[in-house]
Amino acid sequence: MTHANAGGLPFQTIGIVGCGLLGCSIAAALRSRRFPGSIVGCGRPGKNLDTALGRKLIDRAESDLGQAAAVCDLIVVCTPVDRIVEDIRIAAGRARPGTLITDVGSVKRFVCEAAGELPAGITFIGSHPIAGSEKQGCAHADSDLFEGRVCVLTPRPTSPREKVVSLTSFWQSLGMSVVEMSPEAHDRALARTSHVPHLVAAALAATLALENRSLTGGGFQDTTRIAGGDPQLWSAIFLSNAGEVTAGLRAVVSRLEELRSAIERGDKGRLEELLKVAKQNRDGLGPASKGAAAP
Amino acid sequence: MTHANAGGLPFQTIGIVGCGLLGCSIAAALRSRRFPGSIVGCGRPGKNLDTALGRKLIDRAESDLGQAAAVCDLIVVCTPVDRIVEDIRIAAGRARPGTLITDVGSVKRFVCEAAGELPAGITFIGSHPIAGSEKQGCAHADSDLFEGRVCVLTPRPTSPREKVVSLTSFWQSLGMSVVEMSPEAHDRALARTSHVPHLVAAALAATLALENRSLTGGGFQDTTRIAGGDPQLWSAIFLSNAGEVTAGLRAVVSRLEELRSAIERGDKGRLEELLKVAKQNRDGLGPASKGAAAP
Repeated sequence: MTHANAGGLPFQTIGIVGCGLLGCSIAAALRSRRFPGSIVGCGRPGKNLDTALGRKLIDRAESDLGQAAAVCDLIVVCTPVDRIVEDIRIAAGRARPGTLITDVGSVKRFVCEAAGELPAGITFIGSHPIAGSEKQGCAHADSDLFEGRVCVLTPRPTSPREKVVSLTSFWQSLGMSVVEMSPEAHDRALARTSHVPHLVAAALAATLALENRSLTGGGFQDTTRIAGGDPQLWSAIFLSNAGEVTAGLRAVVSRLEELRSAIERGDKGRLEELLKVAKQNRDGLGPASKGAAAP
Repeated sequence: MTHANAGGLPFQTIGIVGCGLLGCSIAAALRSRRFPGSIVGCGRPGKNLDTALGRKLIDRAESDLGQAAAVCDLIVVCTPVDRIVEDIRIAAGRARPGTLITDVGSVKRFVCEAAGELPAGITFIGSHPIAGSEKQGCAHADSDLFEGRVCVLTPRPTSPREKVVSLTSFWQSLGMSVVEMSPEAHDRALARTSHVPHLVAAALAATLALENRSLTGGGFQDTTRIAGGDPQLWSAIFLSNAGEVTAGLRAVVSRLEELRSAIERGDKGRLEELLKVAKQNRDGLGPASKGAAAP
């Protein structure tokens, strides 16, 4: 795999807040792409931080977010969606002027709104690297997790342009393509491409009777794979994007009702037509993944 | 991979009717497991039959089903669901007494009912090897397609026991585990484990807007993979199992409505509970496949 290079990034010390799968994959990606600066891992003392230190993904472990924030010029908040806002506030309260803070949350509107009022000189710009896995923890960190994937940035019109440029180069250095969107447009799109698919996979998995388990094939397994994700983490995502998620769910349910109606009426023409649209859309994407998922 | 052995099968000449992906994978599996008899491939003259002959998966190509049936002691009908019954009737009309006919259709009740009245001495027993792919054609034939998978047999109480035993050993020799079920129980279970998942994947794929394509991750790709299947083939499956499929769809839609309601109410407890059931069910299965799907 061709590696992008993190050697020229305009940051000396990068803080990773939350050393789970995403945080540690960022650290691993920085290392393997030759980031010359220092990486501070911040989180509760325990297995993840120990693993990150043991694998030398971070130079230093810090359990106090304020202390970590005070020494970084880029802070990447990788905690679960329902903790992001609080962590941004704590970090911003102790960071030096000029510090750039971002996050990796799958929901952007409420984060960007809540992070609107930060101390002078501190910039927050939302990020959503569309990469991940249903696996959790630093033990599954993957330095190529972001390679070839898309990262959405959600700057405000008032965000300093040079900070947007720095953040863009950060994600590009991990192998990502960067696109800019408004937080609202991001949340609308991701409801359809990630949040609703998760709920659909969950609904399907939930209806599987124990006695039918041995009669599932690769189709059922693929269609429900992301239902193996963490219920708490995903609940927080759905509730933080409730309006768009419920609208997206209605669209899928309405399509399912159309399919059901065509089957009940024995309307082969309509059924094939609906399935053809689905096939065309699906054929426009790549093959199934080998385990990566966008949370 | 440890290969089961087809050397001792109680058949001299096996006819494969319909030389697409499944038919040619059966032929390839018989070859690689050292079936010593002859394999007759039957279908319309064209690319699939040419490929099957060129790859030496079959010994002889025959475009006339009656003529093929007359020389076989096992006939495996691998044509699409809406052609199976007709092909069984044609084959049975020319087969010698003692001949066993089976099929590989994903729907069993209507096939078994229609195949109830065959000439004396001809036995039909339904099979459904739960293995497949969204790919089509002999070019994608895979001699290990059936390895480690389940095959459902749907004999009637009046089916000669020695024929059930022979058919069991046939699928076992391709590496499959064999279970017996009534056609009705099969159709009810497969509606839930295969047919409804396909419709759910299709509904999801159909709602993907073009501008959101680049914002899909591995989750969306896996969840919709089977929506790439052939619309005609799948329409025939859904319509042949309409009652069970629509009941299964109602169950999934009702679960989706429960999830939506919990999100709208902001009921984190209920939401997590529903996602936990889904996760438990999903964790009880294996990892996602590398391309195999049960049609």
